[in-house]
Amino acid sequence: MRTELCERLGIEHPVVGFSPSEQVVAAISRAGGLGVLGCVRFNDAAELDEVLTWLDDQTQGFPYGVDVVMPSHEPAEGVAADLDRLIPAGHRDFVERTLLRLGVPPLGVDSAQRAGVLGWLHSVARSHVEVALRHPVRLIANALGPPPPDVIAQAHERGVLVAALAGRADHARGHVASGVDIVVAQGYEAGGHTGEIASMVLVPEVVDAVGEGVPVLAAGGIGSGRQVAAALALGARGVWMGSVWLGTTEYRSAPALREALLKARSSDTVRSRIYSGKPARLLRNRWTDAWSAEQAPVPLPMPLQNLLVAEAHTRLMESGDPTVVPMPVGQIVGRMNEVRPVADVLAELVAEADETLSRLGKLAG
Amino acid sequence: MRTELCERLGIEHPVVGFSPSEQVVAAISRAGGLGVLGCVRFNDAAELDEVLTWLDDQTQGFPYGVDVVMPSHEPAEGVAADLDRLIPAGHRDFVERTLLRLGVPPLGVDSAQRAGVLGWLHSVARSHVEVALRHPVRLIANALGPPPPDVIAQAHERGVLVAALAGRADHARGHVASGVDIVVAQGYEAGGHTGEIASMVLVPEVVDAVGEGVPVLAAGGIGSGRQVAAALALGARGVWMGSVWLGTTEYRSAPALREALLKARSSDTVRSRIYSGKPARLLRNRWTDAWSAEQAPVPLPMPLQNLLVAEAHTRLMESGDPTVVPMPVGQIVGRMNEVRPVADVLAELVAEADETLSRLGKLAG
Repeated sequence: MRTELCERLGIEHPVVGFSPSEQVVAAISRAGGLGVLGCVRFNDAAELDEVLTWLDDQTQGFPYGVDVVMPSHEPAEGVAADLDRLIPAGHRDFVERTLLRLGVPPLGVDSAQRAGVLGWLHSVARSHVEVALRHPVRLIANALGPPPPDVIAQAHERGVLVAALAGRADHARGHVASGVDIVVAQGYEAGGHTGEIASMVLVPEVVDAVGEGVPVLAAGGIGSGRQVAAALALGARGVWMGSVWLGTTEYRSAPALREALLKARSSDTVRSRIYSGKPARLLRNRWTDAWSAEQAPVPLPMPLQNLLVAEAHTRLMESGDPTVVPMPVGQIVGRMNEVRPVADVLAELVAEADETLSRLGKLAG
Repeated sequence: MRTELCERLGIEHPVVGFSPSEQVVAAISRAGGLGVLGCVRFNDAAELDEVLTWLDDQTQGFPYGVDVVMPSHEPAEGVAADLDRLIPAGHRDFVERTLLRLGVPPLGVDSAQRAGVLGWLHSVARSHVEVALRHPVRLIANALGPPPPDVIAQAHERGVLVAALAGRADHARGHVASGVDIVVAQGYEAGGHTGEIASMVLVPEVVDAVGEGVPVLAAGGIGSGRQVAAALALGARGVWMGSVWLGTTEYRSAPALREALLKARSSDTVRSRIYSGKPARLLRNRWTDAWSAEQAPVPLPMPLQNLLVAEAHTRLMESGDPTVVPMPVGQIVGRMNEVRPVADVLAELVAEADETLSRLGKLAG
């Protein structure tokens, strides 16, 4: 199942695997895909630098990439303390009352209160790019459209490819006009930040919009070899997968999260602004249901909403209760029913894709 | 691109085409697909009988089918006059005020006031089945799950296959347990009544749930040969297409509707309960936007909502204003950019699918 994307990225299988976990990223790259590290969780650039140094070692020369989150519209900037003042008291009250009602205990004495995620501030995302460019990364992906022109220029100077996610064909066309090399067409069914158009419709639309010269990766709903083959049928040159790796041995998951992911069906997700302030698909549970109730407040814009719920996220995750864990995940979660090593997941995916491709070849008239 | 579905239905291409238009249905069947006539608009069974007699002639011996709408839960029954009393005055006021605000004129003196659609009453849908079974139909499909057991038994006695739409794998399993022969896995991106799970995730889930013996048709997001090939990659034995035929020469469309459909992009649809009382994907416009406003009332349950808006639908359609036409359509509407004969659409679809299948066969490792 080689496509020209394999040559361009120096990989064996046209599978790009996104994960916030460096263990998962290293395993994907070692298994012949391109592991891409989600950087949004690193409020401190020095910590990212350490992790990338570890990755340089662990990927054993196989290529890897990073994913940053730079919103296309400049968001409110500031240090956490200033931003905190913009959060209405009513929202804070709702969060506290909801945690109480859900039976979520306060943070233990051992827990460091988790700071809100600042990685979606331009300044912080820029520090991620600066650090990444000091490492041998093959790809910088931006979750929210094209990075600023000088970032693209810096990447290109160092021979690093730039990818950007798009949920609409017109956005994809804009990304390419801005100098992006690879477009990730991310459908409605994807986990995390996502648009309204489903992969079946979006992928060929984006492929046609950007033209032959720009490889498109299909993201959203991909977790099996049949789905990889479907993505290639739609004109994608490869796939971008995120959710599936949450169910691997390498992903160091809280037991409650793992239990929730293994149990969830494809209908157990919801697209909501409560995680970050922008629409993102999450595991549906008692926490997301609370925010869907009639009396619930309207979520705040990015980055305030995540600052509002940051401590709550830690408490929910540490509660040990699988019915409240806060987690971005796609509809493919319905297929995650056992914990396996990354290499096994990838090998099975590739085998099923090859089998499907040869089955399809025989159907050609 | 023949699959065993072709043998089972006696057709040349594994493409089932749904349309409320008998002209479209006849053209699909003559071109080697299976045309399926949507019956919900026939409040009078005698009228359906006449149309099927016309189809018997026009399909020239090629097979065709019918589609009825029997909700799996028995809805409120009654004649239109009784049901009318269940509609709150506030809802009627909202409809009138909205039409006024949108500049939609009252019905012309020539217009017969359109009765609400009663085809989703069990009693009316049953009359459709009775009429259909007097004609040489090859397939009876039900839009809202399995028909009652005696309907399935009657169909099977006459050698007629029964199909049912499913938006979730567990529903599909239930359909098969009830005796349904073919499952239509309908993804979120589809037009009309639709669930939350997108085709990329739903189709393989349904295929695995019902097992080898039950053919699955992929519905939702299918409008090109690449999408047909993707559906086959996901394990479907064929496709079910509805929206695409709205853009054909044979579909006798009001000019305003045609203009709206040709202009719409894939992002110009919305999933809402305002058309029938159940979630259905519609063309998004000033009419659907009015119902999304904060002050808008909550739509009524089926069948009351359609009775509420039936006259409004006629007025909106007759207004000649493309920004208000009420129309169920899928996200594939973004691909409908010119009006062509059904036979050309189908021929191009099959050619592109064959080309895609042979391209994929060459990628197999």
